[in-house]
Amino acid sequence: MLRGPVGKMLSRLAIITSRIMGPDDANIVGNVHGGTILKMIEDAGCIIGTRHCNTQTGDRCVAALARVERTDFLYPMFIGEVAHVSAEITYTSKHSVEVQVNVLSENILTGAKKVTNKATLWYVPLSLRNVDKIIEVPPIEYTSTESEELGKKRYEAQKLERMETKERNGEVITPVSFPEPYTVGFSQSSLIHLIGPSDCTLHGFVHGGVTMKLMDEVAGIVAARHCKTNIVTASVDAINFHRKIKKGCVITISGRMTFTSNKSMEIEVFVDADSLLETDKGKYRAVTAFFTYISLDKENKPLPVPPLKVGI
Amino acid sequence: MLRGPVGKMLSRLAIITSRIMGPDDANIVGNVHGGTILKMIEDAGCIIGTRHCNTQTGDRCVAALARVERTDFLYPMFIGEVAHVSAEITYTSKHSVEVQVNVLSENILTGAKKVTNKATLWYVPLSLRNVDKIIEVPPIEYTSTESEELGKKRYEAQKLERMETKERNGEVITPVSFPEPYTVGFSQSSLIHLIGPSDCTLHGFVHGGVTMKLMDEVAGIVAARHCKTNIVTASVDAINFHRKIKKGCVITISGRMTFTSNKSMEIEVFVDADSLLETDKGKYRAVTAFFTYISLDKENKPLPVPPLKVGI
Amino acid sequence: MLRGPVGKMLSRLAIITSRIMGPDDANIVGNVHGGTILKMIEDAGCIIGTRHCNTQTGDRCVAALARVERTDFLYPMFIGEVAHVSAEITYTSKHSVEVQVNVLSENILTGAKKVTNKATLWYVPLSLRNVDKIIEVPPIEYTSTESEELGKKRYEAQKLERMETKERNGEVITPVSFPEPYTVGFSQSSLIHLIGPSDCTLHGFVHGGVTMKLMDEVAGIVAARHCKTNIVTASVDAINFHRKIKKGCVITISGRMTFTSNKSMEIEVFVDADSLLETDKGKYRAVTAFFTYISLDKENKPLPVPPLKVGI
Repeated sequence: MLRGPVGKMLSRLAIITSRIMGPDDANIVGNVHGGTILKMIEDAGCIIGTRHCNTQTGDRCVAALARVERTDFLYPMFIGEVAHVSAEITYTSKHSVEVQVNVLSENILTGAKKVTNKATLWYVPLSLRNVDKIIEVPPIEYTSTESEELGKKRYEAQKLERMETKERNGEVITPVSFPEPYTVGFSQSSLIHLIGPSDCTLHGFVHGGVTMKLMDEVAGIVAARHCKTNIVTASVDAINFHRKIKKGCVITISGRMTFTSNKSMEIEVFVDADSLLETDKGKYRAVTAFFTYISLDKENKPLPVPPLKVGI
Repeated sequence: MLRGPVGKMLSRLAIITSRIMGPDDANIVGNVHGGTILKMIEDAGCIIGTRHCNTQTGDRCVAALARVERTDFLYPMFIGEVAHVSAEITYTSKHSVEVQVNVLSENILTGAKKVTNKATLWYVPLSLRNVDKIIEVPPIEYTSTESEELGKKRYEAQKLERMETKERNGEVITPVSFPEPYTVGFSQSSLIHLIGPSDCTLHGFVHGGVTMKLMDEVAGIVAARHCKTNIVTASVDAINFHRKIKKGCVITISGRMTFTSNKSMEIEVFVDADSLLETDKGKYRAVTAFFTYISLDKENKPLPVPPLKVGI
Repeated sequence: MLRGPVGKMLSRLAIITSRIMGPDDANIVGNVHGGTILKMIEDAGCIIGTRHCNTQTGDRCVAALARVERTDFLYPMFIGEVAHVSAEITYTSKHSVEVQVNVLSENILTGAKKVTNKATLWYVPLSLRNVDKIIEVPPIEYTSTESEELGKKRYEAQKLERMETKERNGEVITPVSFPEPYTVGFSQSSLIHLIGPSDCTLHGFVHGGVTMKLMDEVAGIVAARHCKTNIVTASVDAINFHRKIKKGCVITISGRMTFTSNKSMEIEVFVDADSLLETDKGKYRAVTAFFTYISLDKENKPLPVPPLKVGI
């Protein structure tokens, strides 16, 4: 029989992952990358979503990430701190699961703890026999009818938004040739990544968290090129996963500055997938999102952002 | 305020880390490496040990691993399963902390769970101001005098054993042969590497880039052993890939100094592949190359290289 | 402004990958390892080569690296800089592809850019249906007959050199000493590892878990060499950490079979640490342990272990 924290965790349909932040998780100044945190969030979400959808008889399935709601990075996290990521299922529709994730940073030397992120993720269970088939989600029990109704509202709202962004995406970024400082073309960046086995689930599809980590990396390069300072992720707008990305694909992640205020920069990031082997399939847009970055001085205090110039 | 699993966990002075096992955590047949599990056990132990020893005023400290008691691997763990590692402090002496760690495997598709490991680790808190100073450990409260007495017995037993093995093993090593400084034998180095999934293409052959990276690593160690300074790669001669290397092979990368000028060192590097499972194939030479390294001072300016001596 | 290779990327058949250099890409002084750059060069070459060879109907294929021409490292690269790697196909023969790769370092804070490397790689397309079959390469269009003729000369020159080195090196290796099967010497193995930032705590000492993972890796190679089957860790005897290991050290992990029963193998593992830069400290034994392994068949059932032979 299981007692203590493990038993408690498993019985509550919740999960916690904890990990100490190392030099690879952070930039040269010691701030943990937003992308590292996004990946941990998705790891926890995928585990709890997959576990829940397999608590019934019938086809075995894997939870595929469909959407991440807008996420704020409330406090920076640093190397040496422990990140505790907890995930809980908060709503289920017939074909999707809502997971609420909280991230807590703990300084194990001083004992200081801070909630750094709260995120909401939507998963869709795909059958392992036939990955184009979405299976039915077992319902959860709600603590009150009110909490069920609020969940339903969130479900309807995200469904509508996903439809809308699906229609919008598909435009191609037009490359710009003579980049003047502080124009869009000046900081525009892109990165190519070949999807390898360790980026994927057992069934050959990319983990949503891997994609998000790369998106944050590109957004960070765009932000650093624009303002030439230490920059950190402040928030990420809703991210929609339109289409699956298979092992062996090459993905191009492109970022461009779309807006600056005195205090922050907004960067649009696209993920385009391209199967090297299946040339007939063509290139398709798989994921899109907006990242907000802030610029910091050496004491981690906000710096003003140079305004984005109109021009090419 | 923290509610739910995170809050509960932090209040109990216990910790759980959970992680899904990927292809890189396992061998080609899918069994998770014992080393992957040992690393997760120590990660959890280090977090809880460091946290506990900092719950008092005075010097900040870090928990350094001093000993791991005998550990059994009760059941194998497989790719796709979730490893839950829980850690709890079970005894404290004046200068050491005993941590008990349990590892549970969960198949999130079937829901099956198994306790795969139980481990006991001993940590010693080192001051961050002066890492040679061991600080005092705040005492824990025991549930009974019996549990405290049992802990004390375990403490005395491990202390005795540590003393004994220290005498046997803790001395400076006298190598079998004494290669003279600046001879070929003095800097000669080799490393073995087991080819895992993330080293390979989708089709199970090693990426050329992975081999080249390891070759440069060995060449760099040879160069650093020879001149004991900061060294950097200056050039690589043509590299020929004679034969393919398959997933699951063990490769031996060997480097030896072949020539020195006043300004540079030439190091020959061989890659020999060996299929552990297909004994009939034998060991074969797969890649060879010559690397040129230079020695740099603290301002990144070239330093003279000690000449290579003839001898053994 | 970006000129040269980066600008050309926007035209056809070229690729660029960009990545920010982190602490693990570099040595303790901050210089990016030559091996990191070589790996990025090959990643880009493999993507463009594989893509090109699949732009025709017929068998799908993967580009396997056959040769890298002599490569110079023109300028050092540092942590925090962005490496831009661009690749272009410059020649095709019936069965091989020449890829030209340029590496540019960009300091995103100052905007400074430098071409650090130029490399030429040769790939051969292997059929995915049958990896021993080389398929035909679709021809590229040349900008002039002169560029085609120069390409042909490079092709002939490298072909000749490959033949020559194949004769010299491509044979099966005859080891200097012939350890008899099932003796200690037959399975004895050791590996060297340079302690990097991600192996360490914030205070520059190796995590115990990192050492244990490497110890298990060596023990596993010894066990697999002895019995040529799927092997798994069954238990680990008490491990004592006698002395701290600092960042920048080279550790040698050595394993040797000490005992076999019908069902299991006992392997002794030593960790010796050596500070490359502080020569006065000498090499010292830091950790020792005994690992027990068992041999498994395809259904994960125990197999008998061949007895250890006395001899060399």
